Formats: sequence, structure tokens, C-alpha cells
Amino acid sequence: MSQKLRIIPVGGLGEIGKNMMYVEYGNNAVIIDAGLMFPENDMLGIDYIIPDFRALADKKDLVRGIIITHGHEDHTGAIKHLMAEFDAPLYATPLTRGLLEVKLREAKLYDKVTLNTIHAGDRTNIGPFGIEFFHVCHSIPDGVGLGITTPAGLIVHSGDFKFDHTPVDGWPTDYAKLAEFAGRGVLALFSDSTNADKAGWTPSEAVIDPAFDAVFREAPGRIIIATFASLISRIQQVANAAFKHGRKMALVGTSMVENARMAQKLGYLEVPDGLIISTDEALRLPAKKVVIMTTGTQGEPSSILSRLSEGRNRQFDLLPNDTVVLSSHPIPGNEEMVHRTINKLLQRGAQVIYDPIAAVHVSGHASQEEMKLLLHLVKPKFFVPIHGELRHLHQHAALAREVGVAAENVTVVENGTVLEFQNDTLTVGDRIPGGYVFVDGTGVGDIGPSVMRERESLAESGLVIVNLRVGAGGQLAGRPEIISRGFVFVKDETELFEAAQNQIARVAARLGGGGESDLRHRVESELSDFFYTETKRRPMIFALVNPAAQVDEPAAG
Amino acid sequence: MSQKLRIIPVGGLGEIGKNMMYVEYGNNAVIIDAGLMFPENDMLGIDYIIPDFRALADKKDLVRGIIITHGHEDHTGAIKHLMAEFDAPLYATPLTRGLLEVKLREAKLYDKVTLNTIHAGDRTNIGPFGIEFFHVCHSIPDGVGLGITTPAGLIVHSGDFKFDHTPVDGWPTDYAKLAEFAGRGVLALFSDSTNADKAGWTPSEAVIDPAFDAVFREAPGRIIIATFASLISRIQQVANAAFKHGRKMALVGTSMVENARMAQKLGYLEVPDGLIISTDEALRLPAKKVVIMTTGTQGEPSSILSRLSEGRNRQFDLLPNDTVVLSSHPIPGNEEMVHRTINKLLQRGAQVIYDPIAAVHVSGHASQEEMKLLLHLVKPKFFVPIHGELRHLHQHAALAREVGVAAENVTVVENGTVLEFQNDTLTVGDRIPGGYVFVDGTGVGDIGPSVMRERESLAESGLVIVNLRVGAGGQLAGRPEIISRGFVFVKDETELFEAAQNQIARVAARLGGGGESDLRHRVESELSDFFYTETKRRPMIFALVNPAAQVDEPAAG
Repeated sequence: MSQKLRIIPVGGLGEIGKNMMYVEYGNNAVIIDAGLMFPENDMLGIDYIIPDFRALADKKDLVRGIIITHGHEDHTGAIKHLMAEFDAPLYATPLTRGLLEVKLREAKLYDKVTLNTIHAGDRTNIGPFGIEFFHVCHSIPDGVGLGITTPAGLIVHSGDFKFDHTPVDGWPTDYAKLAEFAGRGVLALFSDSTNADKAGWTPSEAVIDPAFDAVFREAPGRIIIATFASLISRIQQVANAAFKHGRKMALVGTSMVENARMAQKLGYLEVPDGLIISTDEALRLPAKKVVIMTTGTQGEPSSILSRLSEGRNRQFDLLPNDTVVLSSHPIPGNEEMVHRTINKLLQRGAQVIYDPIAAVHVSGHASQEEMKLLLHLVKPKFFVPIHGELRHLHQHAALAREVGVAAENVTVVENGTVLEFQNDTLTVGDRIPGGYVFVDGTGVGDIGPSVMRERESLAESGLVIVNLRVGAGGQLAGRPEIISRGFVFVKDETELFEAAQNQIARVAARLGGGGESDLRHRVESELSDFFYTETKRRPMIFALVNPAAQVDEPAAG
Repeated sequence: MSQKLRIIPVGGLGEIGKNMMYVEYGNNAVIIDAGLMFPENDMLGIDYIIPDFRALADKKDLVRGIIITHGHEDHTGAIKHLMAEFDAPLYATPLTRGLLEVKLREAKLYDKVTLNTIHAGDRTNIGPFGIEFFHVCHSIPDGVGLGITTPAGLIVHSGDFKFDHTPVDGWPTDYAKLAEFAGRGVLALFSDSTNADKAGWTPSEAVIDPAFDAVFREAPGRIIIATFASLISRIQQVANAAFKHGRKMALVGTSMVENARMAQKLGYLEVPDGLIISTDEALRLPAKKVVIMTTGTQGEPSSILSRLSEGRNRQFDLLPNDTVVLSSHPIPGNEEMVHRTINKLLQRGAQVIYDPIAAVHVSGHASQEEMKLLLHLVKPKFFVPIHGELRHLHQHAALAREVGVAAENVTVVENGTVLEFQNDTLTVGDRIPGGYVFVDGTGVGDIGPSVMRERESLAESGLVIVNLRVGAGGQLAGRPEIISRGFVFVKDETELFEAAQNQIARVAARLGGGGESDLRHRVESELSDFFYTETKRRPMIFALVNPAAQVDEPAAG
């Protein structure tokens, strides 16, 4: 009697990021990745979002291992939340493991987690699963995809991949292993859909070298290159260009310094002795002898690039002859912040070089022709697109049908949908309950739609607080205090608030000695209408009813 | 004695939208365009932004005319604000005039404004300025650029333009006039920079026809096409495809219906009799016989497309076989909302077709090769890029230098910079004071940085109100009432608020009978620290100190 192979994409389907997949057979399960997602512009005050694995709580005892495919935040960023709940060993390649260690130490979880190092090419048994790790090119070294041999068949998980024929580390994606999987027969392929609407083939990382060469040749002063802290191969490319053009290189920003140090220690970043110098040293050198690498490509206000663009960086300022390179693309939703940073850098006199102007960045994800190649190499019976917004999943599904996967075997599902494989068939089951888990400060999942709506309302038109003091007879004692924030510029609105006080007095007089709660609600409602009429804005209004001080009473009325 | 020609780009330089230019010679001036800009994601609660023309207040008597180059919001949207302050006749082509009339009627300003109709090819004298209007292709018909003969020389203003060889209305940009200007000698060119980072040549509107053809041929049910309400040529293309494929066409949404009616009346939209039917009629026809056109391509929550994507449209719902076409690009900053709308439409089972998937939209603005062509046609002595973010202006300036405009004659300036032309030289003067003028409800320019910061703070972590009642001896009477919004989910946080009350009691006890203001500030500050320690969030805190009710007093303490 065969059992069901159950696969639940917990995160990363229907949106970009917070990737996580749960794979179960009988009483054994593995989890693949534990990423975070950055909040969208209208998720006010949210720090980040993690996969909703609350519905897996009763499956904790089944999980035999947690596999992390590579070291990017959208695959590792929820690790501390997951490890606080699940007790299973972690499996990762050396660089990914190194980056996970940093996270676990920060979260004071390092001592309680078992970390297993695996390498591309290894095969490891975890419960009934035979896991083969195969190398994939991506915008971070040491990424892997997975071949998972299960009693129900062979499942292939692409990880985040591209087919780069000339990657910086010289290590192409493992075509042979993919073809070998096909030879054995692949039940289902789960593949990265991030760039499913990009035609053609993602350019190789190698195209960046000539672009950097031109920048280094022509820059009249310092070069400042911003990229993601985890983009180790880009740091390598900058180091190569710096060495070639006789510049020293300084890394600025804790995460980039730490990642580079870890990558150097583990052999993923090779830099000639003496090339990397401290920022202090760099600032003492002639401008033409220096390249500074830093983060902040997404316009994050606290980043060094953003601080430089606004003249509020502590250690150093922009100089008129500086050339700033943004070696990155905006993460969807960040376009406005990124463009604003570019505009401010230009305003301060820097020359700014970014992707449409020069090929200083390429994506780490496969485009359509690469997706089709993977499908042809792996020849899966079933195909499930993962990692992407719903529009990407649908587009990837269309590509799979184009290259010959039977239309009825191509399945687009969203997070939490249970996929059941048995006897070479796929049944799409129910969705486990769940959704966004917002992390805000120390709160994980406590912010739901109602709090979010309150924040939206406050952001829209601010608030007004009215402090009513009422005598024993129900009459107002004096003019009520009115406090407002985010509504109007108070100093210019004396008349508006005086009219509001008169309005309140009328409401109170009309009610006579009504109850406190009645007065409160009438004032809130009528003041809301009053302010809307006057300003076409609807601030949140809070009326507090308090007793008048005894001494005030004789004077009131 | 020659006087100075003063040109002040009041809006539209350094950002996209709210275009406006002021041109002055001696005691005469004209204003070109009066557009609005849509708020960026962090401009909370703002409806739109208009050019800051407050510094022109003392020049009101100089303005002899206001010229509107075409009917898009980023060139017309501030007209009611401008006409409320300035008393000068408007000049516009028939369609632009028609669209302005609608706006002026809405604002109850129609009766006080003089409207002059001009046509491409006309020459009109306004004060000392000889204005020649020349036709330009753009994503709305009847757009013009301007040749302005001034005593200081000939100035060319491109308007919003592209060089479309096969526009829908068959009316290409007026190359001959541009070349003629060059023959006369052009002192300065002011040219549209929106697409300055787009290589090549913007595709013709004609490329959309085959894409629509494919959609109309293959759609299994209804077709719903969303585009901008002012994109008259797109409505024409849909009408052509509908006629060809035997579908009837319904327009949904007030602005689109009104614009189409105006365009039909003025001869800018040619539709066979009986092709356009009412929505009610369309809903009774077989699905394969209908195309519905509507707005909402930017993911605006109140739009029909957005309502359809969430199942909250009143008149009709999405059907499983519907094909939805987004014939548009996201305006920068709207990417997230647009993509979310697409994802939700897919989630509801519609097929969704948008630009990277099929060529169902093209830009209305020139790309780099067209910008170079305009420069070569016009051969200006001075070049000033306009209409675009600072990064676009810089890129456009680089193009101008590439095609041979003397580097010292290419000038990138920002809004409010005074450009003075005299004796064939250009002097860059000071900037007039100004910035963003936010429109929020009925308030124009009343929201400044402090109110915006308050909204940001409220959006980030919400607020907490504490109502303290204090007895005559300064002691707290009972446990203070605490109200919060947008901070935490109150029902789950009983313990947090009880601990906060205890904290408040300790503060009050420590202060003893201190003053009211002292108590207020201590409670606000210590509660802020307390909540931050507990939640890592910093809500705005308001402590109100009120007298205890007389009857409570004996019981307190």
C-alpha cells in the first residue's frame, strides 16, 4: 500500500519572497527554505513578513530536516522564527551555512540548532527522502537545487537559478545532473518563476565586467558602488576591476563587511592581499585611487547610500567628482525610493550609473528561454511553478505547456495548497488556513487587518482628540481642549478649531445632561462631519468626557 | 537696449508631472501648461500635487495668456487652482479645450475664463510673443509643441511628443515646421525627457493593432480592456478591432464615457453607428459578442478594474472565460498596485494580458533616438531638458551633448530656477522659493513637512491615549483609561495594558503632587519607553490630565 506524498508550498507562491515548502511522506517530512518578504508600500509599519506555518504546528514531530537552498533573505530570513518552533537539523552548503550561523547567533539560537554542511553533488538521506543537492547559478555563490527521491517518485526543486555560461565563480549550473534526473524519470518539477515575464535569456554576470571596466577607466574621482550585501560575486567583480585599474577597495556597512569576511574565509571571494583597506585609509588616498563598496541600493533611508544622497552620512560626504554605481535592480515596490535616491545623488553633483544607462547589473533568475531549457532537461510529468507573484506562476505554466508538458499536468496553486502525489497522479487538495504573518518589532503575527486599517486611516488624515470637561449638571465647563496630529497645520487653523469648539458646545447643549457615552459618540460623529465639510478630510476623532474640576464649576455656563 | 527673456520652469523638472513653465519678457508673460502630479507612496493622505506658483503672485498682472499643450492631467490638472488666481485667457486646440471645459465647469470657473481655440499650424501673438503651434504625436490626439518668437530669439517647447510614423489618427509630428525653425535659428530648445533612459525608438501605436487582433481572435468569452480615460487613440483602436471581429463595445466609467463623447463630437474618435452600446445591453449579449472598455489601469482601489478584481463591482462580475487586457504601463510608483490587481484578476479565473506578455501598450513619449532626431531637426543653440525626474534630465542632457550641442550650452536645472536669455547668452539665475504644493481635500498647500511627519509616525506604530484623573492631592483616581489605535490588537493585549497602567501609577506616585504638565510629560515619555521595551514599537502617546470626579475621591488612594 503506497502512501501519499504531500507537498505544501507554505510561502512564496502568489507573491515574491518568503519562500518555504513542506514535503511529507507518511510520518516524515522536510522543510525547504524559510524566507522573509519585504512589506509592500501599504503594509504600514511592518518590518517584514514571514511564511504562515502556524497550520503546521501539529506536524512538528514529523519534520526530520530543514534544507536551505541558498543564503538570500527571501530563503533564510524567517529562520529564527522557524527554529524557535521546530526542532530539526539544518542542511546547507558552506556559504549558506556561514550566513545562517550569523543569523542564529544574533537570535541566540545557535547553540540549540544542529547544522549539517552539505555540498553540491552530495546525496543525503533524511527519513524516507534521498536528497541530492545540485549546483545552480544564482546571484549568490553556493546555491543548490534539490532532487528528492521519495517512495512516490522523484521530485526536482530548482531553487533560485539561472543558466549562466560564464558565471563569476566559473561554476555553471549542473546540466548533467538535471539530465540524469530526466533519465530516471521525474514525477514533478517545482521551478523558480521570478522572471517568467522576461523574454529571452538572462545575461551572464560576465557582461558586467566590461561595464565596470568603462566606469573604472573614465571615473574622474572616487567610485562608490552599491549592491546587495549578499552579492558576493559582485564584490569579486569589483575587486577584479579595482586590481586591474590600480584602485584600493573599501567595504562600508556591517552586513557587507561580515558577508565578505565569511566568503573570504570560506574561499568564495578571492582578493589579492592589500587590495581591501579600511574606510579610514581609503579616505586618505587620492580620489582616483579608491573604490568604496556599500549597500543601500533599495533606497532604504538608513543605508549609507541614502545618507550620502542627503548629506547626512557621518564618516564621509559625497564629493563633486564621485561616480556612484547602482549595481542592482529595484525590488518590486522600491522603484520610487530607488529613483529618488538617484535623483538626490545627481542633485549633489555625483555622476550616477545604473542599469538602463550601463549594464552594471544582471538578474540572478532565469528568463523564459532558461525556464524552457530546465523543463526540457528535466522532462517532468507534473509541473508546479513556484517563487513568484501569481502572474509569474501563470506565465511560467503557459511556458511549460508550450514546451510540451501535458496541460492537465501543469498546476498553478497558491500558498498553503496541499498537493498529493500517489500512484503517479496529482490531486490538488484543500488550502491550509493561513496568510501573511506580519513581523512588527517583537510582534509576530499580532498585526491583523483591523490594526492595519487603523494605521491606514491615521496615515490618511491624522487624528483629533477632544477633552471635554463636564459639570455635575451635564454642562460643558469651559472650552474643550483639542489636540490634533497629522490633520492640519495647527498654527494656521485657529479659526477652524474655534469653530469646532463652538460645534461641540452646541452638541453638548442640545444633549443637555445626557450620559457620558452618549455625549462622547455625538461629539465624535458631529465633529467628524464638521471637519469633513470644512476640509474634506476625515481624521480619527476621540472625545474624552471628564468631570469638571470643582473650583471651575461656579464660573462655567 | 534689449531686455531679458526670463524663463522659469515652475513644475515638472526633477520629477514626473505637474508641468508648468513661465516665460517673461519685459512686462509681458505667458504660462505654458498647469499640470498635477500624483503623490508618491510616502506622501500619506495627499490627493495630488500642483506646481508651486506662489512666488509668481507679484507677476499676475504680467501674464497675457495661458497655453495648454495637450489634455493630460500632468499638463491640465492644476488648471482650476491656476485660474482661481490668474486672470488671463487660455489657449488650446479643440480637444484640449474640450477637456479643459469639463474641468472648468466642475470647478465653477467656466464663466470667468476666456477660452481661445487654436489649431496646430496657427500663429498667435500674445504680447510680444509670436506663438506658433505645431502638431506632435502623443498618447492623446491634438497635442502641440510651441515655437515662441521673442525679442530675444526663438524658443522651441516640444510639449509631450514622440515621432510616430504610423499614428492612429494618421497625423505625424510636424517635421517640416521643426526644420523651418532650425532655418530661422533656434535660441533654445526645451524638450520632453520622460523616456530619456529608454534606448532606441518608441514603438508606433500601430504595433498594438496586431496584438489586439490576436486577443480578439482568441478570447473565448468577453474582452475587458482597461486604459487611461484620455487615451482616445486606444479607444479608436479597440473600436476598430471590435468592428472587425464583430463585437459590440461598451464604455464603463464616467471619465471615459465623457472623454469619448467629447472626442466623438469634435471628430477625434470615429466609430461606426451602433458599435458602441450601453453596458446593460452589452451584459445581455453573448460573451463572445462583447468588448468592455474601462479605466483603472493603475490599480486605483475605487476603479472598476480594481472592484472587478475583488468581486465588489456593482453592475457586473468577472466571468471565468473573461480576457482582461491592461492597455497601459504603470505610472512610476504604481507598480505594486497594478501587479496586485493583475494577480487578483488571475485569482478570480480571468486571463490577463499586459505589456510584457503582449504588445498591448506603447509609450506616448520619445525614446533616445527620437530625442536625438528632435535635437538635429531643431539645431538649438541652448538646450534645456524638461518633463522628467532629475535622472531623466541628466540623461537627456548627455544625449544633447552627444549629438553636438556645445556642452556649456546644455543646462540641467530644477523647478523654480530662473533662466535669463540676453544677447544670445544664457545666465542661470537664482531659484524662486517653492516646492511641493500638496492638495489634500480642500486644503491647498497647508500640509507641510511637520504634518507629513506626524502622519508617518502614526502610520508606523499608531497611537495611545491615556486619560489620567487626578485628585486634589495629586494622587491618581483609579486606573487610567487607555485607548489605542493602530498599535497592537487590543483584545489580545490585556496584560500589556495592565502593565502600562501599573507603570503610569508608579510614575504618578513618584511625582507626588507635581504639576499637571509635568505629569503629562513624564507619563508620555516613560510610557513610550515602556511600550518600546515591550514591543519595539513607538506609538504616539497622548496623556490627558483631568480632575477626578468629586464622588470618586474618598474611594481613591
